[in-house]
Amino acid sequence: MIWGRRALQHVKRFKRLPFQPEGLHRCMSAATQNLVVEMDGKSGVAVVKLNKPPVNSFNLEFLTEINILMEKLENDKSCRGLILTSNNNKIFSGGLDIMEMYNPQPDRLAEFWRTLQGMWLSLYGSRLATIAAINGHSPAGGCLTALSCDYRIMAPGFTIGLNETQLGIIPPFWFVESMINVTGQRQAEVCCQKGLMMTTEQAHSIGLVDDVVPGEAILERAHNEMKNWLKVPDFARQLTKRQIRKPTMDRLIAKRDEDIQNFVQFITKDSVQKAMGVYIDQLKNKAKK
Amino acid sequence: MIWGRRALQHVKRFKRLPFQPEGLHRCMSAATQNLVVEMDGKSGVAVVKLNKPPVNSFNLEFLTEINILMEKLENDKSCRGLILTSNNNKIFSGGLDIMEMYNPQPDRLAEFWRTLQGMWLSLYGSRLATIAAINGHSPAGGCLTALSCDYRIMAPGFTIGLNETQLGIIPPFWFVESMINVTGQRQAEVCCQKGLMMTTEQAHSIGLVDDVVPGEAILERAHNEMKNWLKVPDFARQLTKRQIRKPTMDRLIAKRDEDIQNFVQFITKDSVQKAMGVYIDQLKNKAKK
Amino acid sequence: MIWGRRALQHVKRFKRLPFQPEGLHRCMSAATQNLVVEMDGKSGVAVVKLNKPPVNSFNLEFLTEINILMEKLENDKSCRGLILTSNNNKIFSGGLDIMEMYNPQPDRLAEFWRTLQGMWLSLYGSRLATIAAINGHSPAGGCLTALSCDYRIMAPGFTIGLNETQLGIIPPFWFVESMINVTGQRQAEVCCQKGLMMTTEQAHSIGLVDDVVPGEAILERAHNEMKNWLKVPDFARQLTKRQIRKPTMDRLIAKRDEDIQNFVQFITKDSVQKAMGVYIDQLKNKAKK
Repeated sequence: MIWGRRALQHVKRFKRLPFQPEGLHRCMSAATQNLVVEMDGKSGVAVVKLNKPPVNSFNLEFLTEINILMEKLENDKSCRGLILTSNNNKIFSGGLDIMEMYNPQPDRLAEFWRTLQGMWLSLYGSRLATIAAINGHSPAGGCLTALSCDYRIMAPGFTIGLNETQLGIIPPFWFVESMINVTGQRQAEVCCQKGLMMTTEQAHSIGLVDDVVPGEAILERAHNEMKNWLKVPDFARQLTKRQIRKPTMDRLIAKRDEDIQNFVQFITKDSVQKAMGVYIDQLKNKAKK
Repeated sequence: MIWGRRALQHVKRFKRLPFQPEGLHRCMSAATQNLVVEMDGKSGVAVVKLNKPPVNSFNLEFLTEINILMEKLENDKSCRGLILTSNNNKIFSGGLDIMEMYNPQPDRLAEFWRTLQGMWLSLYGSRLATIAAINGHSPAGGCLTALSCDYRIMAPGFTIGLNETQLGIIPPFWFVESMINVTGQRQAEVCCQKGLMMTTEQAHSIGLVDDVVPGEAILERAHNEMKNWLKVPDFARQLTKRQIRKPTMDRLIAKRDEDIQNFVQFITKDSVQKAMGVYIDQLKNKAKK
Repeated sequence: MIWGRRALQHVKRFKRLPFQPEGLHRCMSAATQNLVVEMDGKSGVAVVKLNKPPVNSFNLEFLTEINILMEKLENDKSCRGLILTSNNNKIFSGGLDIMEMYNPQPDRLAEFWRTLQGMWLSLYGSRLATIAAINGHSPAGGCLTALSCDYRIMAPGFTIGLNETQLGIIPPFWFVESMINVTGQRQAEVCCQKGLMMTTEQAHSIGLVDDVVPGEAILERAHNEMKNWLKVPDFARQLTKRQIRKPTMDRLIAKRDEDIQNFVQFITKDSVQKAMGVYIDQLKNKAKK
């Protein structure tokens, strides 16, 4: 079964969740061809493939689609597990769309950030067992997405990391805390300060990924791993997860508006905009070569 | 010197500790053949062997005996270290006695849980240097007991883990925090959600046990390790330990009654009782084969 | 360029920092030949060599010199990175000068401790990228100093650790938290309780040091590592660091006076003074042999 544009057109109303992904109401009619969803009704496992060319970068619309899907899956009682991967076997996700942050409209910038918060909250706190099958590069927001899952399997030959500082951006506290929770504070300090993009093997050695599997076998491995997670009664697994992750989530929930203000204020600084302009020019020049 | 039933019969009154093990008053006359205690007056090291056939499972009476003994050792100025092991070289402890939780009387169930809290508080915060010599399987409450010690040595060929979720039970927050404090958050999330029973080697690889030693050599190894701990002046070691562990203990102390209520409410649910019934039937069928 | 006594004589006034190192005002005229500072104006990297024979132990005057230098470097916009090492290639630092704690004047003892707090606060929260090139033994306060840096490179053949308990002293909570932040709680519990002095290799295996490099190559390695840290825009690295380390710093800032009182009260106890006397006699006897 493939969920996609048509399936979502039939969805009329969403029950309000404790962490309702923002922007749902006005993006209901948005296309969702950017997500390929394969739901196995028998196992209850949804495979979600990020499918937004060229590099699955997160803009407001894409994040909103993801949030709509997450809410749909959360509310679908037949769904028990989520495998998150990319339809592009070179890039898991390029992270946040820099064009959302370059010369932004403040209102849209704030909404963009709130929607990203919403994605993290729904993924980090999902009742589903979540496995990231990282079949390509995964910088910044891509890494955050992987960090939000319960388990990470990565194909060799790629890189992953919270490399915000390399771009002159400060990873927000909940990015950093997601990293600390996975790798411990020492590694998180080094990774986040240096903005390290690590090879698969380096990431594995510090525990940022749990397992290394060749790209062609990564989905099979994810399904096998998922079987182990689904042997456990759902409610026991969910409450155990919630218990561990709640304090981290609560810290963002308590400061959600402040975090948005900080982000908007920081990104709209002249110096940051200028640095971003330089970076975008570099990307364009690279692309020409 | 062996402490046992007779020794305890002479104990008349216990000074009230900050964390007095509950149920002392009414279990004073309980037999203690379930604990073999070998106290070496010269070194100040007590070896305590869990000795409650068939699998050293913790029921109210056994927990109470342990708490009485812990208080006795805490108050015995000649005692400086505790090696906790099993008199059964296949099973360290089978964990909580499921029969305490199946068709329970609410009052006894609450007392059972308070006594378990008391055991954890006295062991986790003990002024003694505590080493678990894990010479057999150690699921659930057995694993918690090991996690409460300062150091863990395990014999190969066995399994250990907080496998509560496998039984449809949620490990309480202080079980999980004990695991996080030992293995870090990432491993604790995976272990506790999946209810993993790990081999000795797996447990060693994630830091859940500090050392792997063949069963026949485990006590000798524990004694040698203990010598290192006792080279340090007791008060300096104790205050250092207290400083590190106090925040974790305080979180339970602050929520002790709430934790008991949660437990009683959860365990007495029809669905949980039903699941437990199925599990007990499985155990019985296994036993028949 | 070498900074030293003469350079500091020209410094007239210090802007008050949020964490102003105490004792600045009255130590302005103190000699600073105990610190060899090599500042590379091009790279912005200062190499600071502890140079107080025989073992770079921290007394009030030496700590004050370090704090003055740290403030100078913090305020020097051309300075971006700090490599901290020893001019003695056997001893990084012997830690706190025990003579500050033996038969102390209470006022000076309190000032000593406040100055040590100040050093830790300025180093742990430094805006500079800080690398410890640990080219010799590094017990107690020496280990704390290394723990306060962003990255630790150590030469083989030496030992490092918070060995306070071995001397009957309790490492203060911020020493212990510095260790927990680097090695995780399990290792910190064992290391701090036992007062372990670890070999370079042991320290590396638990993450207490990040890299092992022969003593003759350690500075070159530190400079190469520093280049990676300085590739990142300073403000992004600094804010990321501050974000991660602030909670730990805030805990000391909130309890700074209480921590001083605890220290003074503890050190001036008869029993502690007596134990220290025995230890000092042992040191003297060792020195004679």
